[in-house]
Formats: sequence, C-alpha cells, structure tokens
Amino acid sequence: MLERNSETFLGCDAGYEEAWAVLYGAPFDSTTSFRPGARFGPSAMRHESFGLETYSPYQKADLTDIRVFDSGNLELPFGSAESALEEIEKRAEIILSDGKLPILLGGEHLVTLGAVRALVRRYPDLHILHFDAHADLREDYLGVRLSHASVMRRCWELTGGRTGERSIHQFCIRSGDREEFHFAGGHTDLHPFGFDGLEDLTERLAASGVPVYLTVDLDCLDPAVFPGTGTPEAGGVFFPELLNALLAVSSTRVVGADLNELAPMLDASGASTAVACKVLREMLLALSHGRA
Amino acid sequence: MLERNSETFLGCDAGYEEAWAVLYGAPFDSTTSFRPGARFGPSAMRHESFGLETYSPYQKADLTDIRVFDSGNLELPFGSAESALEEIEKRAEIILSDGKLPILLGGEHLVTLGAVRALVRRYPDLHILHFDAHADLREDYLGVRLSHASVMRRCWELTGGRTGERSIHQFCIRSGDREEFHFAGGHTDLHPFGFDGLEDLTERLAASGVPVYLTVDLDCLDPAVFPGTGTPEAGGVFFPELLNALLAVSSTRVVGADLNELAPMLDASGASTAVACKVLREMLLALSHGRA
Amino acid sequence: MLERNSETFLGCDAGYEEAWAVLYGAPFDSTTSFRPGARFGPSAMRHESFGLETYSPYQKADLTDIRVFDSGNLELPFGSAESALEEIEKRAEIILSDGKLPILLGGEHLVTLGAVRALVRRYPDLHILHFDAHADLREDYLGVRLSHASVMRRCWELTGGRTGERSIHQFCIRSGDREEFHFAGGHTDLHPFGFDGLEDLTERLAASGVPVYLTVDLDCLDPAVFPGTGTPEAGGVFFPELLNALLAVSSTRVVGADLNELAPMLDASGASTAVACKVLREMLLALSHGRA
Amino acid sequence: MLERNSETFLGCDAGYEEAWAVLYGAPFDSTTSFRPGARFGPSAMRHESFGLETYSPYQKADLTDIRVFDSGNLELPFGSAESALEEIEKRAEIILSDGKLPILLGGEHLVTLGAVRALVRRYPDLHILHFDAHADLREDYLGVRLSHASVMRRCWELTGGRTGERSIHQFCIRSGDREEFHFAGGHTDLHPFGFDGLEDLTERLAASGVPVYLTVDLDCLDPAVFPGTGTPEAGGVFFPELLNALLAVSSTRVVGADLNELAPMLDASGASTAVACKVLREMLLALSHGRA
Amino acid sequence: MLERNSETFLGCDAGYEEAWAVLYGAPFDSTTSFRPGARFGPSAMRHESFGLETYSPYQKADLTDIRVFDSGNLELPFGSAESALEEIEKRAEIILSDGKLPILLGGEHLVTLGAVRALVRRYPDLHILHFDAHADLREDYLGVRLSHASVMRRCWELTGGRTGERSIHQFCIRSGDREEFHFAGGHTDLHPFGFDGLEDLTERLAASGVPVYLTVDLDCLDPAVFPGTGTPEAGGVFFPELLNALLAVSSTRVVGADLNELAPMLDASGASTAVACKVLREMLLALSHGRA
Amino acid sequence: MLERNSETFLGCDAGYEEAWAVLYGAPFDSTTSFRPGARFGPSAMRHESFGLETYSPYQKADLTDIRVFDSGNLELPFGSAESALEEIEKRAEIILSDGKLPILLGGEHLVTLGAVRALVRRYPDLHILHFDAHADLREDYLGVRLSHASVMRRCWELTGGRTGERSIHQFCIRSGDREEFHFAGGHTDLHPFGFDGLEDLTERLAASGVPVYLTVDLDCLDPAVFPGTGTPEAGGVFFPELLNALLAVSSTRVVGADLNELAPMLDASGASTAVACKVLREMLLALSHGRA
Repeated sequence: MLERNSETFLGCDAGYEEAWAVLYGAPFDSTTSFRPGARFGPSAMRHESFGLETYSPYQKADLTDIRVFDSGNLELPFGSAESALEEIEKRAEIILSDGKLPILLGGEHLVTLGAVRALVRRYPDLHILHFDAHADLREDYLGVRLSHASVMRRCWELTGGRTGERSIHQFCIRSGDREEFHFAGGHTDLHPFGFDGLEDLTERLAASGVPVYLTVDLDCLDPAVFPGTGTPEAGGVFFPELLNALLAVSSTRVVGADLNELAPMLDASGASTAVACKVLREMLLALSHGRA
Repeated sequence: MLERNSETFLGCDAGYEEAWAVLYGAPFDSTTSFRPGARFGPSAMRHESFGLETYSPYQKADLTDIRVFDSGNLELPFGSAESALEEIEKRAEIILSDGKLPILLGGEHLVTLGAVRALVRRYPDLHILHFDAHADLREDYLGVRLSHASVMRRCWELTGGRTGERSIHQFCIRSGDREEFHFAGGHTDLHPFGFDGLEDLTERLAASGVPVYLTVDLDCLDPAVFPGTGTPEAGGVFFPELLNALLAVSSTRVVGADLNELAPMLDASGASTAVACKVLREMLLALSHGRA
Repeated sequence: MLERNSETFLGCDAGYEEAWAVLYGAPFDSTTSFRPGARFGPSAMRHESFGLETYSPYQKADLTDIRVFDSGNLELPFGSAESALEEIEKRAEIILSDGKLPILLGGEHLVTLGAVRALVRRYPDLHILHFDAHADLREDYLGVRLSHASVMRRCWELTGGRTGERSIHQFCIRSGDREEFHFAGGHTDLHPFGFDGLEDLTERLAASGVPVYLTVDLDCLDPAVFPGTGTPEAGGVFFPELLNALLAVSSTRVVGADLNELAPMLDASGASTAVACKVLREMLLALSHGRA
Repeated sequence: MLERNSETFLGCDAGYEEAWAVLYGAPFDSTTSFRPGARFGPSAMRHESFGLETYSPYQKADLTDIRVFDSGNLELPFGSAESALEEIEKRAEIILSDGKLPILLGGEHLVTLGAVRALVRRYPDLHILHFDAHADLREDYLGVRLSHASVMRRCWELTGGRTGERSIHQFCIRSGDREEFHFAGGHTDLHPFGFDGLEDLTERLAASGVPVYLTVDLDCLDPAVFPGTGTPEAGGVFFPELLNALLAVSSTRVVGADLNELAPMLDASGASTAVACKVLREMLLALSHGRA
Repeated sequence: MLERNSETFLGCDAGYEEAWAVLYGAPFDSTTSFRPGARFGPSAMRHESFGLETYSPYQKADLTDIRVFDSGNLELPFGSAESALEEIEKRAEIILSDGKLPILLGGEHLVTLGAVRALVRRYPDLHILHFDAHADLREDYLGVRLSHASVMRRCWELTGGRTGERSIHQFCIRSGDREEFHFAGGHTDLHPFGFDGLEDLTERLAASGVPVYLTVDLDCLDPAVFPGTGTPEAGGVFFPELLNALLAVSSTRVVGADLNELAPMLDASGASTAVACKVLREMLLALSHGRA
Repeated sequence: MLERNSETFLGCDAGYEEAWAVLYGAPFDSTTSFRPGARFGPSAMRHESFGLETYSPYQKADLTDIRVFDSGNLELPFGSAESALEEIEKRAEIILSDGKLPILLGGEHLVTLGAVRALVRRYPDLHILHFDAHADLREDYLGVRLSHASVMRRCWELTGGRTGERSIHQFCIRSGDREEFHFAGGHTDLHPFGFDGLEDLTERLAASGVPVYLTVDLDCLDPAVFPGTGTPEAGGVFFPELLNALLAVSSTRVVGADLNELAPMLDASGASTAVACKVLREMLLALSHGRA
C-alpha cells in the first residue's frame, strides 16, 4: 500500500507528539502595498528546501537530530486581514497549549500580529526582537490599520504600549517615514542599519529570563543577497551577520518566532528562496539548544 | 518654462471638458486568490501604450480624432476591498454626472462592482455584457463576499436579481465550480467557451435601447495570446474574435465599460500588455461611434 | 493535534483503498538533450493545481466525485537511467497488482518505458497511443539507447516489434530525423502534425477491446499554448483538439497512462503549468467513465 | 591537433565554394524605437539551432543534403545606421558576385535596406515580397530617415518609386499610422492581416520570371507564437500559414532573402528562437529547389 | 473636474518656479554595444519610486521638504546620437538659464555629453566627478566617436583637454582597454576600483570653489547590488560606499549632475531599479544643502 | 572568399601550435540533483565574453598578449556519465601530450574527474586545489558513484587515497552532510567558508614544486555575486577574494585547471555569466606567468 504525498520543510518530519517546535505557514499578502507575492513564500521554502543539506557546518548540528513538525499552511481568505489574523492566532494558540514552540512562515509581515496576539495572552511581559529593513510603525496606511506597514505599531499596542516598557527591539531598520522614526525615538528600541547593540541586548534579555518573540523580515538582508521580496531596500546586512544575530538570540528565552516576506517569484534564480531556507535551518538549530 | 511630466494612455490627451469618455484606473488586487499583480495593469498599459499606433487598420479610425481624457489611477488602500470599491464608485459617479462615459482599467475583476454600483443607480434597467474565462458567480470565497470570484454574483444582486430579468450575459466562460454553473443555469445568460450567440444578443439589445455595461476580463483570451494574468485558463478566444465581439457590442447603448486582469509582471515578453493596449484602443474607437 | 502537511494534485485525495487510479511522479530528466527541467514537472503540477477548478464544464464532471490517489514522486537517482526506469516499473507493478490504473507524471519522456515494461508483462497485446511533437524513434542518441529520443523505439521492441503488429499509434508528430520517419513508415502507425485518423482508430480499438496505454508528451501542443518544455516545436495542436482527442481515447480500454515534459521553469508566466494541470484534470475525468 | 571552435546555423556547414546560398548576420538594432534586442537574433539562432532537426517532415527534405555556408556576423558599429548599411551592402555584393544567394539574418528590419541596395544594382526590376505586422512606410521617424519604421519606404524609393510599378508586395500588415496606409494605397501592393492574394501573386511573379527579394519580419507571426520581438502585434498569422507562404514564394525567382526581428531575450522560454530557427530551415529548404 | 494623470519621481512635485533643481530624462541607448535597455531607465525610476520612502534615515531629511521639479523625458530619435545630444543640451541650457540645477536621468552614458556641453559654456573651468566601472576614454568605438565608450574622452576634450588641467576625476574604474588606462595615466585623475582619494579631492575642490559636474554611472556599484545594467562588471562598490561618496561630493559646488545606465528589464526582481531610486533620493537630498 | 563563422572565448584566438594553454568545454549536467543548466555554461561564456575587455587592470596584462587556443565543446551523450568522462579524459590527454595546459570549462562539477584521471596518470603526486561551496565528498548519491556530489571523493581515491597524503585542499566549503565533513576531517585539507590558510599553503606548494590541479566551482562565490548556479549557497566569498586566491595559486606549478557550474539561464540578468568570464580572464592571465 502506498503513502499519500506529503511535503514538509527539509528534515522537519517528526511526529507531532514528539516535536518541540511546530512550523505553520500563513500564505497571505493582501495588504502588501508594492509588489505582492509573499503568499507563495512558505510553499516555496518547502518545495525548494531539498536543495539544502540538513547539516549545518556553522553550528555543527543536523536537522535530522532535532524534532520539528511541519503542520503546513493555513487556508486564509484573501481580502480580509482580520479573518486571516484570527486563523493565525488560533493555530498559534493550539501549538502553545500543546507546549510547543510556534514558528510561523509568512507571508507578508502583518501575519506576525496574529501570532503575537496569542503569545501576549500567555506572556504579558513579552519582548519582541524585530529584524527588518522597515520600521513598520505607521499608525495606518491610507486609513487601513491592519497593514504590513503598521504591524509593529499594532504589536507595540499589545506589549510596550501597555506595559510602558521599550520592549520592541528593532534592528537593521533603514526605511520608514519621518513619523515612524519619531515614534520609535519615543517608544521602541530602534537600532538603524545593522545589528549594533544586539549582543548587549540579548545578554540582558537572557539574564532576565524575559519571554522573547523573534520576528525576522527577510528584507533585513541586503537585496544583493535577497532580491526576492516586495520592497528591496539597499544597504542591508549579509548572511553571516544575520546568522550571528540568530545565534545571539538563541541565548534568550524564545517563546515564538517567525520568518517573513520571501516573494519567490520575484527572484527567478532561486537564490532568495535558498537563503530563506538556510536562515530557517539555522534558526531551528539555534532555537533547539536545550530543547530538542 | 517646462511642463510637468504627464503620462496618459496613448492618444488620450483631450481636455476634460471636451472629452466624451474618461479613463480611470483601479490598481487593486487584494482579493486575488492565486497569482497577484493585476494592480500593476493600468500603469503598465499607460507606460507601454507608446509601442502601439493610434491608428486602427481594423476600424480605419484614429485615437487622435476622438476625445478621451485619462484621469489616472485612484489611490486605493490594499487590504480593504470595501474602501476600494467606494473610491471607484465615487469616481464613476463624478464622470457620469459630467455626462461622460466612464471606462475603468483594473486591477482585479472585483473593481467592476464599484462602477456597477454607480451605474445601476442611474440606470436601474442596466444589462451587463461579461467577457471572461471565469463565471465569477460564487456566493463567497472562503467566507469573503467581496471577492474577484464573486463579483458577478454581487452584480447580479444589483441588476437581474432585483429586476427578475436575465440581464447578465456571460461569454467565453470555461471555468467555475459546479455551483456557479448551476446558478448561471437559473439566473444568468451564460454562453460557454466563446462568443456564440453574441451577435443575436447585441442586435436585440440595440433594438431595445437598453443601457449596457461592458466588462472585459482579458483572460477571456486564450493564454497563448494573454499569459500575463493571474489564472490563465486554456481554451479561450483569440484576438480577432474579441475584436469582432467589441464591434458587435458597439452597436448597443453602452453606458460604461471596463478592462481588467492584466498582471504585466507575469509576462516578461510584454506581449500581454501589448494586446491589452490594443484591445483598449479598439474598444475606445468602437465606443466612439456617434459620440466623438 | 495537527496534521502533517500533505500535497496532492487538485482533488486527488481519495484513500488508497478506495481509489481506482493512482498518480505517481517521476522527476527525472537526465537524458534530455536540449533544455532540461522536466524533473520539476510533477511537483509544479501539484503546487499550482489549486489555481484550477475541480469541475470541468467540458465534461460536466468533477474531480471531487471520482476517487484518485496521489502517491507522490519517486526518489530517482540522476545520472542512471536504468535505475530510474526500474523504480518506475516497480511502482507501476504495485499499482497494477492492486487493480488500479497507474497514471505517471513525468519528467522527460523516457520515463514512459518504465511503465510500459510493467504493463506489457501483464498485457502482451498492449497498444500504445502516443501524442507528441517528436517521433522518439531513434535507435540511439550519441550511442545511448535509453534516451528520451529513443523511448518509442524501445517501447516498440516490447510491443509491435515482438508481435509484428503496428501497435504504436503516433499523433501530432512533426519532428524527427529522416531515419525515424523511415522507420515509422515500416513499423508504426504515424499520423503527422495532428489528430487526423484518431477517431477511426479509437473506434476500432474500442470495438476490439485491446488494452491501450496512453502516453502524452505535452509538447504535442503548440508552443503558443505550451512554451514551457525543453524542445518547443511550432505547428502543434491547441487545447480544444487535445481535449477532444482525450475524450476519443476514453472510449477504449485504457490500462495505463502518462503525461510528460512540462518544464515549468521555462515558462515563468505559469500558463504552461496551468494547461498541464487542466489536461490532467480532463484526462482523469475522461478515464473515470465507468470506473469511478 | 585540435580544431578551433566554429559555430554555424544547424547543418549549414558546406564549404564556401560549393555553397549556393550564404548566410550573413547583421546584429544591429540601433534605430529600434521600442524594445531593443534584435541585435542578438542571429547569434541566438545559431546557438539554439541544435535543438532542431535538420530534416523537415513538411518538405521531406534535409538541410544536410543542401549546401549552405554560414559566414557569421558582420561587425557593425552601434549608433551609425549608415555605416552599418554599408557593411551589409558590401557583404551582399560579395556573395552576389560569387553567384550565390545572400540570406541575411537581422537584427532590426532596417538591415534589409543594405541588402536591397546591392540587389537593386544588379536587378533593377527587383520585386520585394514583404511579410510583416508593420507597414514600415514612414517618410521618417522623429526626423530620422534611416529607421526600422521607414525601411520599406526607402526600399520603395529604390524600386517601385523609380520604376513606377507596384513592386513592393506587403502581407500580414496590421499596424501603421494613417499616412502609411494612405501611402500604401497609392504606391504599394498591401494585403492587410494575412496572406490573402499571395498564391495568385506568386503564380504571376513566377510566370514573369521577375527577380524577387523576400524579406520576412518574424513579427508577421502572432505574438502567441512569437512573443520574442520588440513590438508584438496581436492578430497575426500562425506557423502553418507562414510555412505555406514560404512554399508559395519558392516558386518565384528569389535572388535574395532575409529574416528579421527576433529579440531572443524578450522570450525566456526559447520558443520564439525555436520558431525562428524552424522558419529559417523551411526557408532554406524551400529556396534550395533546383539549386542545391 | 478631474486632473490629467501626471507622474513624477517620488516627491518631486514642486512647481517649476519654486524649484531649485530640475529632473530631465534622456531615454536613449542607441550606441550601447552590449545589452541595450538603458532607454527605459528614467521611466522605470519614476514608475517604481513610489515603493521608496521620501524620508532618508541616513541624512535625516525628506524629499517633501526640498523643492524639485520633474520635467519628464525628452523625445529623442533613435539612431542619431548627434540629434539626441542636441536635445539634451538644449534642455540643460533652459534649466541653467533659469538658475536651476539640471539633473539628468539616462539612458546610456553618452547622454552626459549633451549636459556637459551646456555646462562648459557657462563654466569653462568645469571639473567632472565621474563614478563608473568603465573608463569611457576610447578615442572611438569601431570608428564611431559619439559612443558610450568614448563619452569621457569627448568630455575631456571640452574640459581638461582645453585647459590643460587634470579636471576629470574618475572613481571605481575597473574596466577599459590598455589604451584607455594609458590615456588616463597622462590626462585624467583616475582612481581604480573604489573611492580611495575622494575625500581629499572633494575637500580641495570645495575649498577652491571650482564648479563641479557629477556623473554617476550606476554600474560603479557591484553587480550584486545592481545587476540591471548592460555591462555588469564584478568588483564594484556597495551602496553604503556610494552613499558616503555622494555626501562627500555635496560639499563641493555642484552645478549639474546625472545618473545613468539603469536597464530595468535586465533585473526582473526590481532591486536594481529600487537602488537607483534610492541613490537619486540621497543625491537630491545631499545636493539640496543650502539650496532647498 | 568568406570565412566560416568561428566563436572562441574572448581573445583566445591563437593557433593551436603556438598556444601554451587550451580551452575545452564539457557541456554536461546529467547528475545535477537540483536545478540543471550547467551544460549551457561553456557556450554562454563564449557568447557573452565579448562584453568584457581583454585587458585586466588588476594584473595590468592583456589576453591579446598571451596565446590561448579554444578547442570548443566536446560532444557528450546525456544520460551516461561514464562515456562523458571518457571523452573528457581523452581530450585532456591530447592536450597534455602536446605539452599544453588543459583548461576545462564545465558543466557540472563531475567533469573534473575526467581531467584528473588524465593528469594523475602523468603526475602521480598531483595535488588538487578545490574552491567550492560544497565538499563533494559523498561516497555515492542515491547509489550513484559518478555524481557531482561525489566528485572530490573519486578524485581523492586517485590521489591522496592512494598516496596517503592530504593532497586535496578545499576552500570556501560551507555545505555538505555530516559524513562529508567527518571524512574531510580524516582525509582532506578542508578550510571552511573562505580562503583562510591559502597563502601559507600556496607558498608551501610553490616551494616544493609539486604539480597542482586547480578546480574552481564558481558557487564558491556568494550567490549575491553569482546566483546563476544550480545550488546557490549563501555565505560565500566575493570577487576580490577569489581574484586574490587565483593570484596566490598562480605561484604554484599548475598543470591543469577547470571552471565549473555556471548555469546561465538561472540568472537572466547576465551578471553571473559576466563574472564567470571575468574569473576566466583573470585565471588565464594569472596562469600565463612565465609561459605565454
């Protein structure tokens, strides 16, 4: 008897029960204001991950030794951001309630809000580590408040805006309107252009044991490395810097994570999808320390 | 003194006052369920129209002799279909109230609903001629009622669903779920695959003098001719058939029109954008009879 | 508890036991002599099939009503044609021995040989219906006998070459070297350019009840419709003709089938993959008559 | 001892002395007003011709049996149309003076003028058969008289404009400004859209024995078949029609020919280059009757 | 009443009277010797600039606060370099005579010569800052003296060749024939590979108050960052280095500037156009110091 | 009398007798396990090399001054790795026996084995310098021992595996399975990620006068610089580092070399082919020291 075709991200074929981490995809990009296509990101990462090795010579570790489950993509309606966020929140809630680490694959960056809503209910003192070219701090975008350009503002309202702490830590930021940078000046912990200050921060966060959500917009990478995204923004970081940043973050108490904004059709060479897969491999291995 | 850069569709540089027809673009594709990109359609048509001649050897007529005004694109928020439709309706309303013919450039097909709302208020007995590969008659799509897949169903509610007439006439349809074909069987005038029956119909409509809205989803064309669209559907019509259909329609009393679903990035050769421009030229010339 | 991600061709989610037909993919293109990439065909068809409807307005039938199982892709070594053919033959053998119809998704056309080996053992009087731009009748290609350019010659050796009958029926052929056409003149039933003679043939085959294998190289389609293939050959048939041909074939006793030579990366518009999906839908529905 | 790498169009490897026809390439596109790239046409045809068979099942003839020499590409300066035309004329003159048939591969259509200048000196009563989507009859283009858009006007001045005959015969024309069609009405033999009237004409030309130059702008083909060109124009002919037209022309006394306007980079699928190669194969075989 | 569609580069919507700087586009690439397409550069930058923010976090300044006018593209004939240069010179002359800074968007690099002709008449002691991968110092290219490969040689004849000074300062140069490097050794101030020496130079130029023309061939950037250009040349600078160079230049007395050689179709990801837009934003902001 | 079209890599037009180095191409990629297309590498490098200068400002040397012969591509059967390797070995043997340096252009990396077989017969103490992202040390790949993923393992069996020395020196390696890194730990001289240790090594090798084979898999470069390859692997070196490495190697006694894994169709911008050409120019110039 033959088995039905299944497709998981490279090496993420543990059973649900034994897994400590669960991948879930949110193929949504309805609020993207420039070039859409991030909806195809999570599937492309699964399809093309078999071009990658399971072994990391950077961490000397192997995906086949850690136990990750891939629950596939949510079925999300286009044209209704609120419904999409509800589905994401529900899935994150299930994974959290089963004691596992939810790892979201976007999709446009707005999807992060769904996950953060679930996490903040469980961890009211949540800190967010945000790697991105864009500040994403707009109050609204042409009147729409649920937008990829506003997602960190909405997350701030749920975290620092409520607790009074500067609990959103932004790195690699090199784009935003004047308002956003002004808002950041007063309310978030924004590090422009690169990862300056990350090591200090992660040491502090690790020492305090505070719960951390890691959200990676892959356009933090320079478009040289990652052209396959809706709004490529020159002047970004390169892979070795992002790798080191992930390793630094792994010393903190990460309770959820996501990886966003791969628009695979925009880079026909496949190099953008390949680097996204490699970042996910390194993220999974880094977060598995002490768990898998 | 120099003039500011302006960009209109080829030959559509009349003044507003003197124009009998007005182009308006709706760069919206948030509800597209498969490959997005129709948002770039209207701009691409303007950019690339200069590769086309203003003269039509088919109609022996020239765009420089008719007077069309190009009012550019609406600024539409992504992620809110309702707001987008309101903007479209408002623009159509202004054009209609100035006694001019509104010609909408999409965008995904949902944009038609904005125009039809304005037209139906003015012409309660409106008939709709619908050229499309897809029936677009779904009650909803994953719970969302404002979707490109439901646009003709929504239009039906405003027209035939209210008057009891089969006033939506669908041609070239070759895709839909079983429900949609069943619904069409009871409520619309659906002609599958091609233009069979169009000539009879337009003669009848012309004789009766009933107001007609023409909505052209360019994917009625075969993907051989028009691959640059989100959901290419084999088995369509070719350019000469569509040209003849436009000429047939021009004998009726057309009170509004649109042209949709060019996703220019999906056809890097530019041939899809070129044929879209040519269809628009022929549509404008055909509709100008007795007006320009 | 969440379910592992699975991915089947549109609507082919029956259980194995209840299915009458089984899809199996052969992602192999090592002997392709010009542009490779057919290896990505079966996966692309699964990924992109969700852009298609399950319902066929041509046959007024729905994939959700027939029971097809998708067993995914074989894991095939590149660089060893013989090993690849053995894997294909084994899979076909399992499906046949479970009383189900094996439907192979290539890959380059050589994969057909693996399936035909299994079928001919069970049906020594097998006839082959071959739709293709190319005759594929070379004795060898640069000394290599297991080549996409020789696959029909190898199949002939197993069927007509053994029985003495002209049991290979070739349609749409418009490319080959002089030798191949000469060979065909003496040994196969070759119909150049299109489907002339197919209806007569299928009536005869249906009447005789002889077992038939259907092999479709999608490049029988004109490159206008299907540019996404390694060796596009102008002057082919269009979708409606291929659809009619499939319907004609469905009246015979089909005991196995395949669909080959989609190289999805060669057509970035996605139109080639879309038409391949549509051909498969129509083929499944056509073959389901009296079975599903 | 090894041989230096050479590259000829498929099967065109005769020695110069024995050849009856000589290929020469003009990689020039400086006056192209829309999308350039035709400069890469002749090289692309050589590179990719090995994906084609030397044998034609249409004509039951083989390139390996006729003797054609490929003299490669001229080295042409970009930015000086006059110098480029002089080089082309010189090469045509050499080939003609050696008693061989010159067959030019463009490049943009202006290159034809260089060849026609050489031919008209030798054949003052030259007729020109012109297959093209565009009339190319402008007096000038933005003041420039040596332009792809004016090439047939310049050719007319050298032939019919001098002799008073309608000796330029245009087929498939479906684009031009009003002036051009008006000029054609008075001075050329223009057949719009397709090949209506060609058979009559070629019979007359064959009977009279008048020398004929054949110039094929590949954009006479529909963009469905041939999107890889600078100004794709919907509504063209398909391959079988062009093939029949070539066969009709081969009955006349052809003294020179060209094939133009393949811009290979505009069609990444390679299908446009493939059909260009196939058209050249059929043209060479058709013209070889009674010569090779 | 509706307004006609206009399209300016992001945030450059000042009135002509109030503007201190004026953009003008030269969509010309007729002398390009390798891959053409730079003609589409200026329009692509306008179309896609709305994907960029008006605010620069590098300079903490905003395009909405400075007053730049976008006068659109010149209409230039292809195939006549001299006519094109005349049009460019005329436009530059108008802008200069109105006391505004002319900023030219190419097109191929030859367009610079038109602007320099206008500037040198007004500023006989003009210095030129030249950022480029290529020396552009050929005496001629295949006999043509007005070529992108000779533009700096022609500029030198108008400046240093006349005054006897080394007033052409070349940076990032990593390609040229031996002659060009030899010529540079004797006549220009050539800095190979990067920006070594720029800071010293700009301090000297600023101190002396000499008028400076800045010409940026975007291929000074590494192809990793900017693949969308006709002759990508590995080993270039990255965005942060170019940004710093622009800031250094802004301390001198810049009297004219240009930005060239974006060929947008060569980079389908859009990243090349995006970085070109960002460089223009930073250039405008840098040059606005003390003016806007 | 005209000459037949020939095509050599830029400036490699010496006569065979006078040449010290001979290029030979192996357009083979049958064992490629992910994205194929490297078969088109050698031809693409020839076609596009005319976009490069013959002069190197890095080495202040010119290809027109050294004498290299380009013998074109071998005709290799797809689907039989062993036959392909035999053809490569034979060609290398001829070049070696004529006292010239064989320089192989791949193709996938397996082709190296053919050359190494010829070299090791003549130089039993051969050392191999291997620049690559991938270790290529698998014992087999899905049971196939002649695979691109095993090529260095096969080479090791012929060299270090026989002599007992660590004579394979690997640089830039950042991908492989755990086994491969383990094998390298015991049997090769592997330097992960970059060129650390190369200068020391080349000094030692130069001093000892041991014969050296240089094999460059171009994917040692970062995908930012070189996306046009089958398995792009982030975190690689950039052009200046590779250039310096080639210069270091040129001090040793190089007796053969190759350059592999350009898959030109995967990078439509042409930048990958351009950098491959530039690497080959620099390699030829570097290796010519004391020979040409």
